[in-house]
Amino acid sequence: MMIEYDGRPFCGWQVQPDQPTVQQAVEEALEVLLKERVEVVGSGRTDAGVHARAQVAHFDAPAELDAARLRRSLNGLLPRTIAVCALEATTSSFHARYDARLRRYHYYVSTVPLALGRDVRWLLRPAPDFQRMNASASILLGTRDFDSFCRTSSETKNRICTVSHARWVPEPDSAPVPASRWRFEIVADRFLHGMVRAIVGTLVEVGRGRRDPEDIQTILMAADRRMAGAAAPAHGLVLEHVTYDDPFAADAYDRVEACPD
Amino acid sequence: MMIEYDGRPFCGWQVQPDQPTVQQAVEEALEVLLKERVEVVGSGRTDAGVHARAQVAHFDAPAELDAARLRRSLNGLLPRTIAVCALEATTSSFHARYDARLRRYHYYVSTVPLALGRDVRWLLRPAPDFQRMNASASILLGTRDFDSFCRTSSETKNRICTVSHARWVPEPDSAPVPASRWRFEIVADRFLHGMVRAIVGTLVEVGRGRRDPEDIQTILMAADRRMAGAAAPAHGLVLEHVTYDDPFAADAYDRVEACPD
Repeated sequence: MMIEYDGRPFCGWQVQPDQPTVQQAVEEALEVLLKERVEVVGSGRTDAGVHARAQVAHFDAPAELDAARLRRSLNGLLPRTIAVCALEATTSSFHARYDARLRRYHYYVSTVPLALGRDVRWLLRPAPDFQRMNASASILLGTRDFDSFCRTSSETKNRICTVSHARWVPEPDSAPVPASRWRFEIVADRFLHGMVRAIVGTLVEVGRGRRDPEDIQTILMAADRRMAGAAAPAHGLVLEHVTYDDPFAADAYDRVEACPD
Repeated sequence: MMIEYDGRPFCGWQVQPDQPTVQQAVEEALEVLLKERVEVVGSGRTDAGVHARAQVAHFDAPAELDAARLRRSLNGLLPRTIAVCALEATTSSFHARYDARLRRYHYYVSTVPLALGRDVRWLLRPAPDFQRMNASASILLGTRDFDSFCRTSSETKNRICTVSHARWVPEPDSAPVPASRWRFEIVADRFLHGMVRAIVGTLVEVGRGRRDPEDIQTILMAADRRMAGAAAPAHGLVLEHVTYDDPFAADAYDRVEACPD
């Protein structure tokens, strides 16, 4: 399934006791339609308040299903803040989390006050220096320990991530010059808890002249969350895309089979 | 001033008795700050529920003003659904409506259910044929009478408009193939009451095979609103840009002076 959601009313993707989550809402809607509870496995967790344009998830269907009909019924049952954009049968071994190769997040900001889209952008006034922020962002590329950008409460032991893209870009539609709407694009094989927001918060401090672009190198080396800046607010962050090997391609299929499940 | 607004809570731009309008909200905020009522003249009216990314408006300042400070104070007083993106002094003869040369509107649609941005897109299910709609749209180009696309209640006598651009384009960010997010872009010297929504509604009927692309020609010739399709919903429409001659350029200044005021 490909799922879009407005993260504002939810305490993130993953089921939590006594909290509204996206996973739970989808599982409950499926339960009504399938007459049994199934676990919906997402490509990864998103934090409270974070949006997704294309979260990918799978579940094991208890019987042969009409995918198009199920998708329509799900969208009829789900709140307006969750939409199932696509639903199709895959190989029985496909796993939304283990088979994901790359995740892409965008963080949206504006340097002018907003009326439209105000709920999905962080207002940055005065405008930071985006060139300076990009000098910093390029230091993030490659494979390294992102301990300094991981929430201290996270239980994840391995904090090595490979970042293949990290760049501030002006939005294509900004009419005014200089551009007032920008986004931070970041692609990696995996992301740690609170990682993108910690990176964005730190880069904005660079863009405001409070840190030097090269400080990012020092922060990474320190492996200490207190070295990085405050996390940027959740409402500007969107999980945009998850990349998989084609599960129907023979070689990908072999790799999928070899994954721990 | 350049003003962005979320049109949903408003009965359009223009002041109306006993109805919330954007013009009234801006005039009331200015009244608090300037200690007197001034008229805020927009580049044109937008209908109830229609948004603007960059409505342009002017007012005659009763005294010398600190533009940056006034803009900040206005944004502090205005509801979150209205944002003043820019405010600057201009020539005393500048007129937001008479000096506007071109207006650009975008109408946003999606062919898949939406959770993010659901309030600014019309959901088109099943997807219409956008190529077919573009064959129709190209017939709209040029100078002609748009009587058939003007609300019958409109008191405007002259209904001649020059359309210089009219095209459905896939959104740059659509990840899925085929694209699921499209917008209809239209640029003209002026627009009549309900014109863009009537055009979009009619084009969608073409895209669904209920009309032939060439029918647009017949509808235009008929000069009868009943010949065109039902208006598309207001929430998908955004006034994106208004083009002016540079009021500080000498030749433009002459033209501005010659305008009726």
